[in-house]
Amino acid sequence: MTQHAYPLLAEVAPDVVVTPVNPADEAAAQARLDNLTKPRGSLGRLEELARRLYAMRGGETPLRVDPAMMFTVAGDHGVAAQGVSPFPQVVTRQMVANLLAGGAGVNVLCRTGGMDFRLVDAGCVGGPFPPHEKLLDRRLGDGTADMSEGPAMSRETAAEGVRRGMALAAGEAARGARCLATGEMGIANTTAATAMYCALLDLDPDAMTGPGAGAGPERVRHKAAVIRRALSVNAALCRKDDPLGVLAAVGGFEIAVMAGVMLGAAAQRLPVLVDGFICSAAYVAAVRLCPALSGYAILSHASAEPGHGPALENLGLGAPLLHLDMRLGEGTGAAVAFHLLRCAAAIFNDMATFDSAGVTGDTCG
Amino acid sequence: MTQHAYPLLAEVAPDVVVTPVNPADEAAAQARLDNLTKPRGSLGRLEELARRLYAMRGGETPLRVDPAMMFTVAGDHGVAAQGVSPFPQVVTRQMVANLLAGGAGVNVLCRTGGMDFRLVDAGCVGGPFPPHEKLLDRRLGDGTADMSEGPAMSRETAAEGVRRGMALAAGEAARGARCLATGEMGIANTTAATAMYCALLDLDPDAMTGPGAGAGPERVRHKAAVIRRALSVNAALCRKDDPLGVLAAVGGFEIAVMAGVMLGAAAQRLPVLVDGFICSAAYVAAVRLCPALSGYAILSHASAEPGHGPALENLGLGAPLLHLDMRLGEGTGAAVAFHLLRCAAAIFNDMATFDSAGVTGDTCG
Repeated sequence: MTQHAYPLLAEVAPDVVVTPVNPADEAAAQARLDNLTKPRGSLGRLEELARRLYAMRGGETPLRVDPAMMFTVAGDHGVAAQGVSPFPQVVTRQMVANLLAGGAGVNVLCRTGGMDFRLVDAGCVGGPFPPHEKLLDRRLGDGTADMSEGPAMSRETAAEGVRRGMALAAGEAARGARCLATGEMGIANTTAATAMYCALLDLDPDAMTGPGAGAGPERVRHKAAVIRRALSVNAALCRKDDPLGVLAAVGGFEIAVMAGVMLGAAAQRLPVLVDGFICSAAYVAAVRLCPALSGYAILSHASAEPGHGPALENLGLGAPLLHLDMRLGEGTGAAVAFHLLRCAAAIFNDMATFDSAGVTGDTCG
Repeated sequence: MTQHAYPLLAEVAPDVVVTPVNPADEAAAQARLDNLTKPRGSLGRLEELARRLYAMRGGETPLRVDPAMMFTVAGDHGVAAQGVSPFPQVVTRQMVANLLAGGAGVNVLCRTGGMDFRLVDAGCVGGPFPPHEKLLDRRLGDGTADMSEGPAMSRETAAEGVRRGMALAAGEAARGARCLATGEMGIANTTAATAMYCALLDLDPDAMTGPGAGAGPERVRHKAAVIRRALSVNAALCRKDDPLGVLAAVGGFEIAVMAGVMLGAAAQRLPVLVDGFICSAAYVAAVRLCPALSGYAILSHASAEPGHGPALENLGLGAPLLHLDMRLGEGTGAAVAFHLLRCAAAIFNDMATFDSAGVTGDTCG
């Protein structure tokens, strides 16, 4: 398997190889699971996760998901000027400071779940942040351009964002990470994500646009109109068979970097937890660049954002793991879901078998 | 508030007082949650859990759910003689040994989630087990009688089981526990639980009976017929306004003890995680004995057993936290869900406020 299997990925990163998972590995994992002291299949989606983790590593045992790293990627959006969010754009920058200080939701949930955390600045308005041990400067600019007036960024900038994300994943893999996760912070980025879904999945802006961080009904209608305008202005770039073009036209700096982290995780044969509504949009672009990513990506949770369900139906990854009506972003859903990966690995590694425990198996019905 | 508010509980334990949670405490908790650096309500069910944990303790802060104890209660069922399970009755005893050795699913998940674990023998066939540091002997007999021929146990034995469960909860509370959980092991106990749902919630055995640990379609039909016979033979005892009578007639030793653990947790103002299909049946009996229990009980997961959904619709506790198609029992769902309680407590305790972090709030729409 070489990079030539994925021509769209080759434009971005000609040297990156993603090996598809092997269904035979999943079957071998299930055979082991069926020997553990429980009725067959009775651990449901934990068994599915264990099978997938086994296949991602090509059959390596024991299954391990620690250490794990959360990359929360921040970026600003020119389209915020259109009043699509109830929060002012300065909140992106304020929240980056909060994320670096450890006071945001994802910080708390990473500490609770035992994940490490880095804040990646992909291009917040206002220039670079002062150095901080948790900060990675991967700035692609000082916020994107307003997508309702033209492309959010150039095609080359989008490709560079993906490459920076891939490099983040490779670096963490080299330091020993066994699981990656993506989260995001960026005022107006539900607008960008919604536009990406509409372009890549051929969905309708009126049906897909929701409140994001808390827009009221009038603002939601305005937001849908802005998205429709952005798709129209950028129609030449927004072809559904051109994920990089869509990313450039109506995406975001943080979305490009997250797509790269996902692809980089797959290239390293690591599981990657996709957080919620925005991260799933990054996933759609990334999996179109390289379909083999689907074997390595895990949908963390069903967002309360109304467009998430229709979008996920098109992704072929099955239902998300958690249904907790969350809609905060930052990686909060992925940080919670990480515990399920740990549970799945532990079940596979540590449960007794019928033989070892001296337990009689079932009589088949 | 005195025990006289709950006359049905008074028959079992006249001195036990359960204080209902105060809705004003939930409102106060939400006010605090609304000041944290996130869009209002955006942590969804984690916020709901935080509100509930706050109210359970009457407003005590910080919220704490550690240390936490899992009681997996084992008991045998005379009705196993009717061939309702694909596993032979000896598996209960074999699995107790596996649970004590630490090789069962719930052991692995308790270790992964940081819960302590005790196996409570409520009455397995074959006499007492040798002493073990994780074993609590609360035997009510050498398995129940066959409920398809008469009551599974006497009314007084059922009450004694509930009292023993209450004492377990009180003891753990005295040792500092901040969260309890129930799980079970007992071949044929989906038969008992299904019969309890039918009796207490006026549901139909044919609609409610499912495969349990893996019965095939023919065995499921036979199981439904056995349940129908048990309800008919015990019709005089199976009145839906008499939870203790139903517990005695078609319940189980482990189900009675789990009902007691739940009531004892509520009496100690502790959260109690209810595992799956069997534990929810214990909950139905317990909450009928004392409706104030509802403020302290948390439904862990939606079981893959088909009757669980219809049963839960009648409980008034909302949807379970997890939907992972699990159907193992033992407390496995509760052990996984415990992590969500930790997350909820941590969010409430540790997130920055808009003021403390210098973050601008939303503009309300």
